[in-house]
Amino acid sequence: MAFLDLAKDRYSVRKFSGNPVEKEKIGLILQAGQLAPTACNNQPQHILIAESKEARSKIRKCTHSDFGAPVIFVVCYDRAVSWKRSYDGKDEGEVDAAIVTAHMMLEAADIGLGTTWVGSFDPDAVRREFSLPDSMVPVALLPTGYPAKDAAPSSHHAERKPLEQTVSFNCL
Amino acid sequence: MAFLDLAKDRYSVRKFSGNPVEKEKIGLILQAGQLAPTACNNQPQHILIAESKEARSKIRKCTHSDFGAPVIFVVCYDRAVSWKRSYDGKDEGEVDAAIVTAHMMLEAADIGLGTTWVGSFDPDAVRREFSLPDSMVPVALLPTGYPAKDAAPSSHHAERKPLEQTVSFNCL
Repeated sequence: MAFLDLAKDRYSVRKFSGNPVEKEKIGLILQAGQLAPTACNNQPQHILIAESKEARSKIRKCTHSDFGAPVIFVVCYDRAVSWKRSYDGKDEGEVDAAIVTAHMMLEAADIGLGTTWVGSFDPDAVRREFSLPDSMVPVALLPTGYPAKDAAPSSHHAERKPLEQTVSFNCL
Repeated sequence: MAFLDLAKDRYSVRKFSGNPVEKEKIGLILQAGQLAPTACNNQPQHILIAESKEARSKIRKCTHSDFGAPVIFVVCYDRAVSWKRSYDGKDEGEVDAAIVTAHMMLEAADIGLGTTWVGSFDPDAVRREFSLPDSMVPVALLPTGYPAKDAAPSSHHAERKPLEQTVSFNCL
């Protein structure tokens, strides 16, 4: 499939079937994340896989948006590992974790799984529930599973601003 | 092509042929970025296209890493538009801009173009050179073009940490 078609077809799945996600597919999603480029190839990401009943109940203490998914990936970066920009000291870890998550999200879509990228969660609660060190910054939750039969894009899914609003074509 | 193969084949191209990038291909890259999911679908991204000699010379005042590419996309987000997390007020604009850039990078690879994701630049210089308002935060530069015949992955391109180092498989 052309990448553009994959990007067009994907939507945020917020209703999952009861079917579990095969280990092999979890492996493919992790592999796609592993392949993501990161600043200076530092690979500061750390990914938690919340799959057991207990782990998923911990997630529910951190967000209202787990959508009952059978697997929730928690993508973090480690401040102790991430690259810092020389110009202003900016930490690139959040950008790196986002590239990793984007790869995972797109791979999931390519193998027939649904995801929603969740930014709405309490990072301190994630740290507490999963006993993460202070240097670990959770960036995204990725509830993942097979879409329910009646899963559908939200009404405003396809609404995208025209490029004229978001692009400067002539930068002189 | 399976997404995983696209992710495997892509590498950071740091040497470009002299060939210009067709307008149609620039359009496809922008379209892929447009399709990216953003927090609450706010679409806070703003993309500059530096293609003229003058615009590219401005870029060279902001980074040492333009690699002589014929087109450089500058992906920003607008703080006045981006979604803020209720738990801690965190601005999700950087994450959104990174998802947009990841889509653009992957689309470019899918249509035979090379890119390098550049985080090493002076954001204040970008703001100054392109007269951006203070609310606009440049997140990534994406030099883009046809790979030179002798373009090749850097020696440590394929080095990825084993998943055991970056994944917690059992989160209880």
